[in-house]
Amino acid sequence: MAAPGQNLAVVVHRAGDLRLEDRPIPEPGPNEVLLRMHSVGICGSDVHYWQHGRIGDFVVKDPMVLGHEASGTVIKVGAGVTHLKPGDRVAIEPGVPRETDEFCKAGRYNLSPTIFFCATPPDDGNLCRYYKHSASYCYKLPDNVTYEEGALIEPLSVGIHACRRAGVTLGSKVFVSGSGPIGLVNVIIAKVMGAAAVVVTDLSASRLQTAKEVGADFTIQIKNETPQEVAAKVESLLGCMPEITVECTGVQACIQASIYATRSGGTLVLVGLGPEMVTVPIVNAAVREVDIRGIFRYCNTWPMAISLLASKRINVKPLVTHRFPLEKALEAFETTKRGEGVKVMLKCDPTDQNP
Amino acid sequence: MAAPGQNLAVVVHRAGDLRLEDRPIPEPGPNEVLLRMHSVGICGSDVHYWQHGRIGDFVVKDPMVLGHEASGTVIKVGAGVTHLKPGDRVAIEPGVPRETDEFCKAGRYNLSPTIFFCATPPDDGNLCRYYKHSASYCYKLPDNVTYEEGALIEPLSVGIHACRRAGVTLGSKVFVSGSGPIGLVNVIIAKVMGAAAVVVTDLSASRLQTAKEVGADFTIQIKNETPQEVAAKVESLLGCMPEITVECTGVQACIQASIYATRSGGTLVLVGLGPEMVTVPIVNAAVREVDIRGIFRYCNTWPMAISLLASKRINVKPLVTHRFPLEKALEAFETTKRGEGVKVMLKCDPTDQNP
Amino acid sequence: MAAPGQNLAVVVHRAGDLRLEDRPIPEPGPNEVLLRMHSVGICGSDVHYWQHGRIGDFVVKDPMVLGHEASGTVIKVGAGVTHLKPGDRVAIEPGVPRETDEFCKAGRYNLSPTIFFCATPPDDGNLCRYYKHSASYCYKLPDNVTYEEGALIEPLSVGIHACRRAGVTLGSKVFVSGSGPIGLVNVIIAKVMGAAAVVVTDLSASRLQTAKEVGADFTIQIKNETPQEVAAKVESLLGCMPEITVECTGVQACIQASIYATRSGGTLVLVGLGPEMVTVPIVNAAVREVDIRGIFRYCNTWPMAISLLASKRINVKPLVTHRFPLEKALEAFETTKRGEGVKVMLKCDPTDQNP
Amino acid sequence: MAAPGQNLAVVVHRAGDLRLEDRPIPEPGPNEVLLRMHSVGICGSDVHYWQHGRIGDFVVKDPMVLGHEASGTVIKVGAGVTHLKPGDRVAIEPGVPRETDEFCKAGRYNLSPTIFFCATPPDDGNLCRYYKHSASYCYKLPDNVTYEEGALIEPLSVGIHACRRAGVTLGSKVFVSGSGPIGLVNVIIAKVMGAAAVVVTDLSASRLQTAKEVGADFTIQIKNETPQEVAAKVESLLGCMPEITVECTGVQACIQASIYATRSGGTLVLVGLGPEMVTVPIVNAAVREVDIRGIFRYCNTWPMAISLLASKRINVKPLVTHRFPLEKALEAFETTKRGEGVKVMLKCDPTDQNP
Repeated sequence: MAAPGQNLAVVVHRAGDLRLEDRPIPEPGPNEVLLRMHSVGICGSDVHYWQHGRIGDFVVKDPMVLGHEASGTVIKVGAGVTHLKPGDRVAIEPGVPRETDEFCKAGRYNLSPTIFFCATPPDDGNLCRYYKHSASYCYKLPDNVTYEEGALIEPLSVGIHACRRAGVTLGSKVFVSGSGPIGLVNVIIAKVMGAAAVVVTDLSASRLQTAKEVGADFTIQIKNETPQEVAAKVESLLGCMPEITVECTGVQACIQASIYATRSGGTLVLVGLGPEMVTVPIVNAAVREVDIRGIFRYCNTWPMAISLLASKRINVKPLVTHRFPLEKALEAFETTKRGEGVKVMLKCDPTDQNP
Repeated sequence: MAAPGQNLAVVVHRAGDLRLEDRPIPEPGPNEVLLRMHSVGICGSDVHYWQHGRIGDFVVKDPMVLGHEASGTVIKVGAGVTHLKPGDRVAIEPGVPRETDEFCKAGRYNLSPTIFFCATPPDDGNLCRYYKHSASYCYKLPDNVTYEEGALIEPLSVGIHACRRAGVTLGSKVFVSGSGPIGLVNVIIAKVMGAAAVVVTDLSASRLQTAKEVGADFTIQIKNETPQEVAAKVESLLGCMPEITVECTGVQACIQASIYATRSGGTLVLVGLGPEMVTVPIVNAAVREVDIRGIFRYCNTWPMAISLLASKRINVKPLVTHRFPLEKALEAFETTKRGEGVKVMLKCDPTDQNP
Repeated sequence: MAAPGQNLAVVVHRAGDLRLEDRPIPEPGPNEVLLRMHSVGICGSDVHYWQHGRIGDFVVKDPMVLGHEASGTVIKVGAGVTHLKPGDRVAIEPGVPRETDEFCKAGRYNLSPTIFFCATPPDDGNLCRYYKHSASYCYKLPDNVTYEEGALIEPLSVGIHACRRAGVTLGSKVFVSGSGPIGLVNVIIAKVMGAAAVVVTDLSASRLQTAKEVGADFTIQIKNETPQEVAAKVESLLGCMPEITVECTGVQACIQASIYATRSGGTLVLVGLGPEMVTVPIVNAAVREVDIRGIFRYCNTWPMAISLLASKRINVKPLVTHRFPLEKALEAFETTKRGEGVKVMLKCDPTDQNP
Repeated sequence: MAAPGQNLAVVVHRAGDLRLEDRPIPEPGPNEVLLRMHSVGICGSDVHYWQHGRIGDFVVKDPMVLGHEASGTVIKVGAGVTHLKPGDRVAIEPGVPRETDEFCKAGRYNLSPTIFFCATPPDDGNLCRYYKHSASYCYKLPDNVTYEEGALIEPLSVGIHACRRAGVTLGSKVFVSGSGPIGLVNVIIAKVMGAAAVVVTDLSASRLQTAKEVGADFTIQIKNETPQEVAAKVESLLGCMPEITVECTGVQACIQASIYATRSGGTLVLVGLGPEMVTVPIVNAAVREVDIRGIFRYCNTWPMAISLLASKRINVKPLVTHRFPLEKALEAFETTKRGEGVKVMLKCDPTDQNP
């Protein structure tokens, strides 16, 4: 059991003010578990809260623990918990509905407006030593899945939810716009869902090189093409227009290119978020019955991600390019901010810093 | 059988040049039927070709017969036709695929890029006395369905295809933006698909009155509200945000209001077409997983529309507010252009001018 | 507030042993509400537990309160309840998941194996004066929906779930096998979802007469036809094979007829439950791609049913053919057992015995 | 161009009477192509027509050319053909609708009752030197896909259609009942669609070995287990009940096991065909909402199969275990009848016997 005064946590107080400080070790409620945190990835949103103190309408008003890409070990279970026991290694789904509302009942709990979500103000995240969470949203990891793979389920889930809403299936031709971390997970997931060919665009040659390494069939380095020209290049490389486009940049010109590029009757999923208002060729999409669908986080992805990782069908281990012990969290955040590597992982358990 | 020289047709030559002229009576091919036309509704697109000589990329280069909301009587069948015989009363689906391409095979033949479509350049329509058509796209009318009801299946189909792609179902709350003929058919179809409440917006009080008459539960006369204010009024009247919005105006502010108005996880169908580029709050739609779907004409609607009309579940007869014999087509077009009434019907069979 | 010792309840002790007895008034938990029960319909399963002490693997081992078609008035709310307040009139969804398992998360909470369900052993029902229930599964009734309509949402939900899983939509031709209460609600729901024609079979002419009254277009009184002959009659009356069949009897010959009757590519939903093993022409279904789908109770139906009732699109009031005060529950059960009328309603609130 | 008198064909005259004989070289119609056949696989149904002269209601009344798993080279095109030219290498989809009926319009053309289908009486197949076919159902092969891979698209299509109707997706756990050729293609396709784990059953250890080689994660050699015991073994190996079961034997006990094995809310697809009437635990399926879906051949599979083969995501070449020149077709049929190997391929082009 954990000693009091030992819960080091990464806390943002306001824009630019990130601190390592001690927090009380929480007591799990009847349907909760207490976790000794093991591996927590740093997400772009964590850095954004640190740099800007807000994302859209979500504003850091009180000090908030960061972190939501996480895995750990159960060390205590509430009285009502039956499917987990101390010692279980688990991946943590950061969103936990507070109410059983219409969205939860219909299986789209990510849309529940009152949902708890790690490291979205005012809800604390799990970049710390000890953290309690709803047991129903902790998923036991098989022995052949590492803690870091468990932590990576969170970014993978964005790709799963996007590709599922896009309808990626056997033989799909897919255009992924943007080759950052989210673009990459979409490439990985699209391929494992049976996509026959994936083309990725980006400004950066090195990011496109990473896309190739995780499975992209074709890449296009964007220079100063018009949206229509990008669409034409996508079609040319694939040999046909893609049925599915996953837009991961949020940039207006990229959204335009994504509409022009998508085959009639296909689907464009918007993952990247940019300015509130964008100008788009909506008639072009409408008269060709190209559906435009967004995603908000994810739902129902952890179990399938765990099955997938356990099956060794995908290899996400290379995505982790940097590791820091929790005590060096500020250094880890600086590294992430500089855009080095793909995924920076913080190791929260001083007794086990393995992957 | 028809005598030669008797095929009066309504022909647009170029913008502003509409003529009644005689056309040869066509000879049906092996899989076609020759029809004596009975009732043909005038569509906004017919008037648009007459006024402007084009719609988007479709340009009237050679004289073209107008008309595509039509029904008639089979008077001759090709050698390969087995399901129709002379004397059969039929409704005509105006789009006939020319190729069995990927879209046709997948059941979305409306998206086939080489489709024949009545009164879309360069394909002739059926506003004439005698017309031949693919037998597979002529549907026999039961005795209790009139020719005019048969002709109205075409506009009804727009509503069917929109409401089907919107997923209207039992208990749906629906917002229909715009109360023109297409808005009205969407009200009718949404209600018969089980919608619990439909709210309609328009600038015109008289159009909203018609919406009420065909089944709208609530109406909002738009004055100078912002899109957000329109959305708030829709929610207020329905008691909740609508799961489904059917946008029938194409106006930018209306598309914006439609996005703001639709419930998280719901669907916005774009039916009205406006300018190629529009500025929309796409992030608002994306993060609430509001799907934006367009429609292009329709497919697989005639059989269900005939079943529906035969069942007397809907009454579309009041939609026909004006009738003219084919000889007075120019007068009928002038009436339509002035925006009088709802649907102007041309009566092409001099021996039977009944509904 | 209720006085102690006033909670009269209808309790089955074992097969054949039904008693009216006093139960303690329960205290609602933090997410529960205490209800003064108003109207509770008697279901065939209530009678079955009374007569046989079990349904399949569900066995009455301890005394159990019956009743699960219910509505009442909130008289006390738990500390965590925000959407209800004392005085609210509510309909009660009898199934409440105990765990947030994979089925709940995916929106199919009816399949959760540990679900609480009123009047399914060992869970008590709500045929009593005072009853507590999860607030999330109590739905506020609008002023224009009566308590009895609220109670009827439970049987309606069976029809909604069946017709939804069947895919009933605009213009559907539907065959409902069996004209008991569940057959009737399927007729009502199929029609309001846009079905163009519904044909119903039964052995009883009077039951078929009721089917006509609630909207059936055609009826067939079964005598000694073979399953194939029944299928042929269905096709003959509809003018085509139905896309959808809803089987409500569970009888082997009826399931066989339902398979033969359904159009290629269509769906057969099994609602009626008969013997565990049945002999069916499975190849006939398989090679014509007729899907066979079952239903287990329902999920996500109360909100749409309330919207529907509030809209006055359906009239279920005639289904209530008998009413008894709670004190005369044994008489009411005898009436139900004799198969008189359609729905027997128990009135639990001595101060208000109105519908 | 082909010389007359050179069209050697494999013709079944009646049960037990298989002949190699010369047929006229056909002349392609306006929408057809003439093909020089290259590789044609022998299917179990070909052997069955030879041995029994019929399959169900399909009876060989007149001599019929066998063969429907085929690829070849275009040597002549009809006047209306635009997407193919002489020299194109193509895979042949054997089913070609004769009418544009409701099934074709809705994208389920495989259900069209009047469809032409190679080597289904009375329609000739393509086990011959020269064969004409609808150009719309010939699909151009990329350079990196062999003729034999092209011929294997037919059996692959059965797996694609089954797995698609089953809803196989990322992380699915799948139970394939039966490890014959159709079981194997289902294993291959399920895995490439993202299945996390596939378990296969069969009586034969050697067939199960082949299943392992094509990707099965687990196998169960059936001895004399009850259906419930088989289901328990499946669950035990997978660590949970499979969401999806693909039944490929048609044997009653296997269908029973498949129902018991499938997780609540899952899907059982029936691919194997056995006796017309089978006894099954239908209530078990119904109350757990396990959908039972059949398949009839396939539709819309060739393009995605070609994309898949071109992407090198799957390797089907090992499935071809025997090759014979067309002249030795009778020997090839004897080999197939003995159940040797997996797929026997006939080489129809004397100038090119390569894969």
